[in-house]
Amino acid sequence: MDDLARLISVEEIKALKARYFRGIDEKNRPLLESLFTDDVTLDYRGAATDPSSGVNAMPEATEAVLHGLKTSVDAMMRSIEGVVSVHHGMMPEIEITSERTAKAIWPMTDRLKFTGGGAVAELTGHGHYHETYERISRDWKIKTLKLTRFRVDIVLA
Amino acid sequence: MDDLARLISVEEIKALKARYFRGIDEKNRPLLESLFTDDVTLDYRGAATDPSSGVNAMPEATEAVLHGLKTSVDAMMRSIEGVVSVHHGMMPEIEITSERTAKAIWPMTDRLKFTGGGAVAELTGHGHYHETYERISRDWKIKTLKLTRFRVDIVLA
Amino acid sequence: MDDLARLISVEEIKALKARYFRGIDEKNRPLLESLFTDDVTLDYRGAATDPSSGVNAMPEATEAVLHGLKTSVDAMMRSIEGVVSVHHGMMPEIEITSERTAKAIWPMTDRLKFTGGGAVAELTGHGHYHETYERISRDWKIKTLKLTRFRVDIVLA
Repeated sequence: MDDLARLISVEEIKALKARYFRGIDEKNRPLLESLFTDDVTLDYRGAATDPSSGVNAMPEATEAVLHGLKTSVDAMMRSIEGVVSVHHGMMPEIEITSERTAKAIWPMTDRLKFTGGGAVAELTGHGHYHETYERISRDWKIKTLKLTRFRVDIVLA
Repeated sequence: MDDLARLISVEEIKALKARYFRGIDEKNRPLLESLFTDDVTLDYRGAATDPSSGVNAMPEATEAVLHGLKTSVDAMMRSIEGVVSVHHGMMPEIEITSERTAKAIWPMTDRLKFTGGGAVAELTGHGHYHETYERISRDWKIKTLKLTRFRVDIVLA
Repeated sequence: MDDLARLISVEEIKALKARYFRGIDEKNRPLLESLFTDDVTLDYRGAATDPSSGVNAMPEATEAVLHGLKTSVDAMMRSIEGVVSVHHGMMPEIEITSERTAKAIWPMTDRLKFTGGGAVAELTGHGHYHETYERISRDWKIKTLKLTRFRVDIVLA
């Protein structure tokens, strides 16, 4: 893969991840469905738990690894029902590992405001996405995602 | 437009938007004046209003669409008088639509601390800039900007 | 330097800065050691002081300019002992000034949670890194860094 093709892929993966953040925050199901491989694996385990209190703000989406496009998007859509969410990605480390594969470490912050009347009012989290990508015909897609955390703060309602 | 020229334009538009953020936070009028087309349109309507209280922290800059370079920069400079501001842009979705036109959706956060003794002490907002750009001779400029919000939090003084 | 080489350097400097943020937040000494020139200068003076109270949350790391790779990394590692830290960089302005030199202005936020039982519980800061880079054989390195601030908020324990 030449230098120009690699740069183009890096830029396309950045735009892919930008659509991931917008897809969640807009609760945009078709956009989310366009982001992942059919065999995607999403691992958000532990990502909604405040280590100081042990409270888990999103048990359904964070207690098991999600497998497959439909299951994953279903779980994502359910987890943001009644939530005003803001997800931001910062400076990534992206490595193109072949013409059809890539990986990245992506710093992130999310701010969730729960409006459904449950026990949790707000969650603010900071961590890294550890991701791999696959190029399916023309388009880069997210193949695996694991979210690790430095810090999760939960405000009870 | 070839791939390399497109990548260069994407990078130039990112640097343009970086100067936009720095221009506001440094209250740097010459820098702000260099960013926009002469016929720029800025639409910040609703962007400083907390939906839960209805309080508008910046009525002058957010009640009407701004037209034209001088009017726009005048309004921006007035709106940040006595304000300690921090504006951040995250991962954008940029599309180069021709050799001289482009558009983007840009996630953002702003944090404003009002020191002038008014009713509002702080505003924290999260949303998207929806922008178009035009290349004037060598340089990309912002031609239209509309700010939409997911969330605005206002702290009263 | 041609356009493609310049773009590649811009991308490499972005990944370098991404490793800087991750190196601090992971307290990853080998990663931090890989980021700087041997004669690096780091100037964090004033960066941990809340202007409203005058409290300095990190006196050792912010009272003098740091010189040299080992001294600098030693001071960085000491300053984050017992600290849960989150450092984020946003849209940079990067200028490649020659085949082996570059500079940038980099907006940033850091969020520090002090767990060691001292007087300060948390610091949240917003500002700009003003940096220069040097290419040593193949790799871009940080040669000088100065952190300026728009805002520092300190919460006492």
